[in-house]
Amino acid sequence: MAMPTPTTPGALSRELGNLLERGRDRQLRLAVTGLSRAGKTAFLTSLVNQLRHAGVEARLDLLPAARDGRLLGAQRLNQPDLGVPRFPYDPAMQALSDTPPRWPEPTRGISELRLALRYRPARGGWLRTSVSHLTLDLFDYPGEWLLDLPLLDQDYYQWCQSRPYARGEQRQAIFSEWLAAAEALDPAEEASEAVLAELAEAYAAGLKRARQLGFSHLQPGRFLLPGELEGAPVLQFFPLPYLDQPREALEALPDNSVYATLAARFRYYQKQVVQPFYRDHFRRFDRQIILVDVLGALNAGPERFEDLSRALGELMQSFSYGNRHLLNRLLAPRIDRLAVAATKADHVTPEQHDNLVALLNTMLKEPLKDLRFANVPVKAMSLAAIRATRTREVRQGRERLPALRGTDLEGEETLVYPGDVPASLPDAAFWQRQGFDFANFRPLPGTTGALPHIRMDAAIDWLIGDKLT
Amino acid sequence: MAMPTPTTPGALSRELGNLLERGRDRQLRLAVTGLSRAGKTAFLTSLVNQLRHAGVEARLDLLPAARDGRLLGAQRLNQPDLGVPRFPYDPAMQALSDTPPRWPEPTRGISELRLALRYRPARGGWLRTSVSHLTLDLFDYPGEWLLDLPLLDQDYYQWCQSRPYARGEQRQAIFSEWLAAAEALDPAEEASEAVLAELAEAYAAGLKRARQLGFSHLQPGRFLLPGELEGAPVLQFFPLPYLDQPREALEALPDNSVYATLAARFRYYQKQVVQPFYRDHFRRFDRQIILVDVLGALNAGPERFEDLSRALGELMQSFSYGNRHLLNRLLAPRIDRLAVAATKADHVTPEQHDNLVALLNTMLKEPLKDLRFANVPVKAMSLAAIRATRTREVRQGRERLPALRGTDLEGEETLVYPGDVPASLPDAAFWQRQGFDFANFRPLPGTTGALPHIRMDAAIDWLIGDKLT
Repeated sequence: MAMPTPTTPGALSRELGNLLERGRDRQLRLAVTGLSRAGKTAFLTSLVNQLRHAGVEARLDLLPAARDGRLLGAQRLNQPDLGVPRFPYDPAMQALSDTPPRWPEPTRGISELRLALRYRPARGGWLRTSVSHLTLDLFDYPGEWLLDLPLLDQDYYQWCQSRPYARGEQRQAIFSEWLAAAEALDPAEEASEAVLAELAEAYAAGLKRARQLGFSHLQPGRFLLPGELEGAPVLQFFPLPYLDQPREALEALPDNSVYATLAARFRYYQKQVVQPFYRDHFRRFDRQIILVDVLGALNAGPERFEDLSRALGELMQSFSYGNRHLLNRLLAPRIDRLAVAATKADHVTPEQHDNLVALLNTMLKEPLKDLRFANVPVKAMSLAAIRATRTREVRQGRERLPALRGTDLEGEETLVYPGDVPASLPDAAFWQRQGFDFANFRPLPGTTGALPHIRMDAAIDWLIGDKLT
Repeated sequence: MAMPTPTTPGALSRELGNLLERGRDRQLRLAVTGLSRAGKTAFLTSLVNQLRHAGVEARLDLLPAARDGRLLGAQRLNQPDLGVPRFPYDPAMQALSDTPPRWPEPTRGISELRLALRYRPARGGWLRTSVSHLTLDLFDYPGEWLLDLPLLDQDYYQWCQSRPYARGEQRQAIFSEWLAAAEALDPAEEASEAVLAELAEAYAAGLKRARQLGFSHLQPGRFLLPGELEGAPVLQFFPLPYLDQPREALEALPDNSVYATLAARFRYYQKQVVQPFYRDHFRRFDRQIILVDVLGALNAGPERFEDLSRALGELMQSFSYGNRHLLNRLLAPRIDRLAVAATKADHVTPEQHDNLVALLNTMLKEPLKDLRFANVPVKAMSLAAIRATRTREVRQGRERLPALRGTDLEGEETLVYPGDVPASLPDAAFWQRQGFDFANFRPLPGTTGALPHIRMDAAIDWLIGDKLT
């Protein structure tokens, strides 16, 4: 198409508008993370969906650019990182519009999607027709990868001393068989490839079992999602349970000893698995949102609730990383804004949402303090990326109680009152009552256009709203 | 353990022996490759098994070191490459000793296993007690990866012109639907992420379908085994069917055009997928064996037989790579010995084995010429890594015909006479007769010790025998 020669005043103003548009082009790399089952895939699907339907069907009243009709649309573009899998948005929407609707398949590893947002700036100035672009690169990746950050701060000896398999009674029970076998191993004996492989497999099986049972604080993270490293020696190490010799004696053992072999694999894991993620991806994200399944943990009981808190504490260290002198500054992130969101807010009645945010704030008190100290703006919130329930009021005697109506995973219509969310860390009395009853729901049927949600607009506003003014 | 002070003549000679042993230490990196279903896993399992049983149960008469009782044993060691999956020898042996016995699971991608061989040199000289070591690093990797080498010699324009989907009628039929959709695409139009992803998926589905139907010459190889690149744009390209514009016009198209987008992905594939395998692995192998399922191709008919020949021709270019000036010499291999073996020789009667080798030699006439020109010693042979049949003579009238007895995959005992293997490229008359009837067999039961084989000892002798003298 030939470009029009700017001879008329109208053409001139169009030309100036184009120049202005190009001048205002912005780019933002936004990452979504969370431990498995926190709702990363649902969040990213809903995020893309809301932006694509902004201004038409999507309800985004808490996002000023959308409320004021300035957000004109979102178009998918080719992503710049050719080696990163594309986030499967279409299959996810397909699953949600199936009969019966299904939750999208969870992603494994990192994935990416690029959007171009078109919007009219709030203060358009003298050129009312000006349109700006924001190029939004969206990523999701497993929060489990961030649990490996503390491994960079330790050497193999310190990691063994930390006894990661011994936190809590239920976890100890899971690892008891592995522990008995690992105790029999002499750090000084010659390493047998087969014995180490077997023990490492038993250790990885323990981690997987712990995750199934609802534990969160699991290291090393890649043992849970090995990908192409399945069966490689770099994933075949484990902490030696009892080291009664001093560090110097252990470190003097020959290269083919059990201790030296495991320590070498630990170092390789640090350098070839953990560091590359930080170097190639993490430090290039501008903003991130961490999703947390607080309600699931409340359901799972005190040991696993505490385990989630501890895991989040470790995970969030990655974001105040820049201030830690021990670690390589090259790996430090440039995060300029962070959100932490309790997901699945549609699984409790609306009057509980404030408690949910208050509880999240209490759980993350220490890491949030560190982040504020590191001058990273951070906000805690609650949301439902894809709302699966409707609120109903139920009369009970003279009272009107709020309740939830939805379809459970077996396809039964149900009406539930899940219970109260504690506003601060639950005490023994809470756990004894076992007062919390969390149900899983199917997505609502007929979600072909904009997805129903709770406060996705608030999340979007915090994460990108300032770039749309 | 304290070292004995060499005071007595016996101790002195032991010491000298130790010194000699260390001085003679050798290392060899041996790779096994072949297109899928050629028998890589069976071969590597048998290779490890024979070496571990050498001198005890294994029948290795064609390997002088074993025949003379000088090969003392093989021990597994920790492999040096921590990021490469370990070859699953134990699960493979487990499958073979199951009831009923099963073939081992095929490997995907590259895997590795390290053995230490202990042997007495043939010319021990004055020190009869001297023992030498050979450290043997064994690898297997998909031959499909080698089919990508020619892509390094081409740019995207040339690749499109080569029309890889149009070789032969049956292949054209497989790709007809994809072709109709791809023809509608204008190289100059703006690339749509979704449209390119869909067409690339259809192209990959065509490659997978072609492989299922017995085709071998399939590019790009990683489309068949994507691993962690599943869903990444680097695997989302395909040849544009009709390019009626000259190269210069196409190359001047903007970055976001269909042509430029696909060409960029093609280049990324060359640099980030094909080259790293050659750089990090291939050029570090000392010796290689290429396994070929000639009998399977004879069974599949003329188009697929010819396709296998062409695929092998391209694949074997990788081994005479050092002499090709167009390609980066840094990627050139240091191969000093090569074997090409027709596998599954136990699926034809013994008097056909000479024909099998003759046929293989004819199929590979041109690539073998290139290799000899490149001064790479190469030998063609036939073998059965794990023999699954027994030979029987059957009387028919006055004749005694050789036949095979085995158990088919459904568990039925069968007696078959598979037919004659042509000694040179089969002609039209051969294909019309459809005279070749290739059956699949289960492994023989009770294979817990040394695995039964045909000429594995000859293969081992060619590949490592000279290092055991």
